[in-house]
Amino acid sequence: MNFHTRKWVKPEDLNPNGSLFGGSLLKWIDEEAAIYAIVQLENDRVVTKFISEINFVSSAKQGDIIELGITATNFGRTSLTMRCEVRNKITRKSILTIEKIVFVNLDSEGNPTPHGKTKIKYIEEEFK
Amino acid sequence: MNFHTRKWVKPEDLNPNGSLFGGSLLKWIDEEAAIYAIVQLENDRVVTKFISEINFVSSAKQGDIIELGITATNFGRTSLTMRCEVRNKITRKSILTIEKIVFVNLDSEGNPTPHGKTKIKYIEEEFK
Amino acid sequence: MNFHTRKWVKPEDLNPNGSLFGGSLLKWIDEEAAIYAIVQLENDRVVTKFISEINFVSSAKQGDIIELGITATNFGRTSLTMRCEVRNKITRKSILTIEKIVFVNLDSEGNPTPHGKTKIKYIEEEFK
Amino acid sequence: MNFHTRKWVKPEDLNPNGSLFGGSLLKWIDEEAAIYAIVQLENDRVVTKFISEINFVSSAKQGDIIELGITATNFGRTSLTMRCEVRNKITRKSILTIEKIVFVNLDSEGNPTPHGKTKIKYIEEEFK
Amino acid sequence: MNFHTRKWVKPEDLNPNGSLFGGSLLKWIDEEAAIYAIVQLENDRVVTKFISEINFVSSAKQGDIIELGITATNFGRTSLTMRCEVRNKITRKSILTIEKIVFVNLDSEGNPTPHGKTKIKYIEEEFK
Amino acid sequence: MNFHTRKWVKPEDLNPNGSLFGGSLLKWIDEEAAIYAIVQLENDRVVTKFISEINFVSSAKQGDIIELGITATNFGRTSLTMRCEVRNKITRKSILTIEKIVFVNLDSEGNPTPHGKTKIKYIEEEFK
Repeated sequence: MNFHTRKWVKPEDLNPNGSLFGGSLLKWIDEEAAIYAIVQLENDRVVTKFISEINFVSSAKQGDIIELGITATNFGRTSLTMRCEVRNKITRKSILTIEKIVFVNLDSEGNPTPHGKTKIKYIEEEFK
Repeated sequence: MNFHTRKWVKPEDLNPNGSLFGGSLLKWIDEEAAIYAIVQLENDRVVTKFISEINFVSSAKQGDIIELGITATNFGRTSLTMRCEVRNKITRKSILTIEKIVFVNLDSEGNPTPHGKTKIKYIEEEFK
Repeated sequence: MNFHTRKWVKPEDLNPNGSLFGGSLLKWIDEEAAIYAIVQLENDRVVTKFISEINFVSSAKQGDIIELGITATNFGRTSLTMRCEVRNKITRKSILTIEKIVFVNLDSEGNPTPHGKTKIKYIEEEFK
Repeated sequence: MNFHTRKWVKPEDLNPNGSLFGGSLLKWIDEEAAIYAIVQLENDRVVTKFISEINFVSSAKQGDIIELGITATNFGRTSLTMRCEVRNKITRKSILTIEKIVFVNLDSEGNPTPHGKTKIKYIEEEFK
Repeated sequence: MNFHTRKWVKPEDLNPNGSLFGGSLLKWIDEEAAIYAIVQLENDRVVTKFISEINFVSSAKQGDIIELGITATNFGRTSLTMRCEVRNKITRKSILTIEKIVFVNLDSEGNPTPHGKTKIKYIEEEFK
Repeated sequence: MNFHTRKWVKPEDLNPNGSLFGGSLLKWIDEEAAIYAIVQLENDRVVTKFISEINFVSSAKQGDIIELGITATNFGRTSLTMRCEVRNKITRKSILTIEKIVFVNLDSEGNPTPHGKTKIKYIEEEFK
């Protein structure tokens, strides 16, 4: 799994107890998964369809740097299933893991449509 | 289930496809669940521990009014399990349902601690 | 008066003195009043026209849970007048009261238009 | 009245009908009044105590530039009363006027305390 | 140089070290320069083209009031060059200075187009 | 140069002309540079000191995915100089390049202090 997007936990991301607000973290994950799906499916009309259970293993505090990793685990006909891990960038300690985030590929009317992809496209290696 | 908090879907809540950004919705749910847990456990030191699978049944668009419903389904020794439903306030159409959102009750050092509660406190009825 | 929407006062809602920023509170009230007006008038083209004087009775601090109550007090021909109260959800202490918030019902060109409503519609009771 | 702070109405400031969200505007006004009070009272512990009625004369749309004017109208013993006008910077059309915004001067414990000021301090002219 | 827009440094504007986040400051400057350019060029289709080097002389902390000054330094055929200074409103201490911020005047297709202006328009003096 | 953090351009990131707001982009760059500096210097007390000129080569629109690349170009005694490139993730088209972003390493009192680093630490390769 490659870890791409990083976040620096700022005051605006905290809950009133001073630790990272779970809701902010979920928002970041959903955006990162959308980006991954758009890149893989080469279509920017994708929507979150399903998120499997989320176990909050550890938290983060102000000033921590966290990184989000996403990898595709299954290419359906109209869907893409991804696995997600979030961890502290410095200590490598896991914050949470989500086994399945499913996005659906849509056509211009917003209906599910086949994407024709069957395996991960490693953009990094092809282009750099 | 009582539906309390309502949201008016504004441009700042949209994804680039013009529908409600799933991440914004998850952030709202986490805040609402935290509020519910704080009120029930009479302790403001609570954290999200677990969220069961999330099935995005339908979406919402700019201008929609949605409402969030939370109800306690189990009182553990140090935890509280809640069920969540989000729906369109006008059409009553379900947007998503989450069977289990588990929060843990913490002491002042941030360790799990018994909360001593065993059933839902209906604040509305007692006070109004 | 029913209290629906709740807010958990987070660091992002504070003024530099560490108490709830009045401007954030006013933003929440305006959104809640808009939602109430849309539901009652069954029209999502409504605008804030008038807000009567606002007396800030007490403040709120980080971690507080506050709740917003709105109720219709008068149905004009093209307008709706509402009363608003904001209070601490736990202590029930009043934070502020606004006697009149007036919204106007608009047609598709943005001009005031009769809404045909004369009394409060209790959605909760009809459907639940 | 001097108009200082300007805002460029961006998508994040709009309500779902595409015009400037009243709540965003109220938030801007409260911040501008706080700044004016801090500068005049030479004390950064000030709080909003009262806002007189607000008449929304006209609206603003995406891309509009608006400017906020505040001027002190009365120096109480522990309070400062200001008048506010918001207008479109290009057309000079008034958006709203608030006759009285009252802030209270606080000591370090958060209690009202005399500020000792009796008239407007024109910082611009003294220093530039 | 006239200083117009003021900001009150709030928790949401801080970096995790508790001082004003440089990125927030840059965002404020870009908005202020856009507003200045729109007013001078009498065209709201303008874009940031170039920003010269930025030297962060001093920082700001929560509760500080800062003010942004912009002045036009050169009118090109399709561009406008501005100088920017940001300082603490109370102490007058400089926070940063940017010698050149260049905006380009666009036509409705988004292409550079002559703006026909050659000198600063002092709106304040003409109208007030 | 490695490109890590990605952003999906959402309505909240747009300027009123519908393209990516330059100020939002600058805020993202400053955060990414701070993260890079903290990781390299193994110290989370770092501040932006200098940003060299910024040439906005192309823009981005709603729905675009952009990626931010940062690489260290010089290790001073108390400073770190980085180079930044932002590009469209799909088309690889450059959006802007900044030759020098300088951060300073601070001690606990906020004074510049030697960081003792002399070359880039490739965390990815060491740990994965």
